[in-house]
Amino acid sequence: MTVVLYDLVGREDRRFSPHCWRTRMALAHKDLATEARATRFGEIQAICDGQQRTIPVIEDAGEIVADSWRIACYLEQRYPDRPSLFGADGESLTHFVQHWVHTVVQPGLVGLIIADIHDHLDSTDQDYFRQSREQRFGRSLEAVQADRDQRLGEFRKALEPARRTVQDSPYLGGETPRYADYLLFGALQWSRVISPLALLAADDPLLGWFGRCLDLYEGLGWQTPGYDWPGLRGGD
Amino acid sequence: MTVVLYDLVGREDRRFSPHCWRTRMALAHKDLATEARATRFGEIQAICDGQQRTIPVIEDAGEIVADSWRIACYLEQRYPDRPSLFGADGESLTHFVQHWVHTVVQPGLVGLIIADIHDHLDSTDQDYFRQSREQRFGRSLEAVQADRDQRLGEFRKALEPARRTVQDSPYLGGETPRYADYLLFGALQWSRVISPLALLAADDPLLGWFGRCLDLYEGLGWQTPGYDWPGLRGGD
Repeated sequence: MTVVLYDLVGREDRRFSPHCWRTRMALAHKDLATEARATRFGEIQAICDGQQRTIPVIEDAGEIVADSWRIACYLEQRYPDRPSLFGADGESLTHFVQHWVHTVVQPGLVGLIIADIHDHLDSTDQDYFRQSREQRFGRSLEAVQADRDQRLGEFRKALEPARRTVQDSPYLGGETPRYADYLLFGALQWSRVISPLALLAADDPLLGWFGRCLDLYEGLGWQTPGYDWPGLRGGD
Repeated sequence: MTVVLYDLVGREDRRFSPHCWRTRMALAHKDLATEARATRFGEIQAICDGQQRTIPVIEDAGEIVADSWRIACYLEQRYPDRPSLFGADGESLTHFVQHWVHTVVQPGLVGLIIADIHDHLDSTDQDYFRQSREQRFGRSLEAVQADRDQRLGEFRKALEPARRTVQDSPYLGGETPRYADYLLFGALQWSRVISPLALLAADDPLLGWFGRCLDLYEGLGWQTPGYDWPGLRGGD
């Protein structure tokens, strides 16, 4: 049985959603056959039961599960004999990493790439995106993103807990990747797919970790259009 | 066999070191009889083999182990049948939490309490502390700590990943405390023991978690002089 993942898409089939990437990596981690169905913002209301407002959403044997964290917990419970996403006792610490990604990483990142996101959306999604996000930020997308070079250093510095962790082990989860890795991976992949900004410096120890994550599951992370970053490559 | 912990002490037997508190809680977690031997800065050079420059240091059956992280790993390996500090697969994620405490929590906190630390040291330690820390910061301790009320809100905000985590589970480690909890606990305990500043707001969800940590192991965390914070109490 193939799991259907409703996967946010921009123009040129760019799969850019950080939250969808978590789920896509989690499904691959669980070795579940997946159809990642390209879904534009404007199409979300029509998927599944018509009640969905955000994605990722998955359909698994007729069951609809929404919200990336709920999906991860669902997969862990539904498929306990497959590789664990959290590790034996790791659910709560993984949740801590998610809260760090939500309160530090992604808020810092969105201000660096939000106009780029707009520019890489399908034209039918652009008006919705601009209006909803400019209302949220209280200024134009271009104003939010302006002077990002001055904020890039601060953003990189905020990644220090992850940077130090992967200097001692291949993954945040330890010897093997875990859902904690996919949480940060999703955020960086969001940027790589949709913005020409080289988010990490070429000598950043996180680049090697990011390359390893991109290589996982037969190079799943590379299977979308994206930008090159100096020093980033797979197969290391 | 009793484990000896060389435990940093200020005046009035205040046990204030964040790194020593991690180790003290870890020893209690492993249910190891412990003598927490009061040690002033000026006494560190004379302990054990005379080679130690920082504490915590433990002596366990003739073995000397230094550095709080190395001690935690040592305890986990030496006493595998006792309650796990990291959880089955949690060492790397716990290390992530430590890096977060080291790069976010403690650097933010030290600037709020450093003159208070000085004022609560034994008089024989004060000159050393002032000189070494003023050299590090490039200004007086009082200047570093000045206007802390203006920085307190930012510090509290930086705790958000932990705050959100304990709104879903009693401990960062999940249903039971883990070493990840002791990492953040040590930082907050540092402040509570040595500074009259109410570090957390009275309605902060972290207060309940902190109280639970203080209550652990027969109220071990209360067994030192410390300051009251509005809303903080044990036994909840």
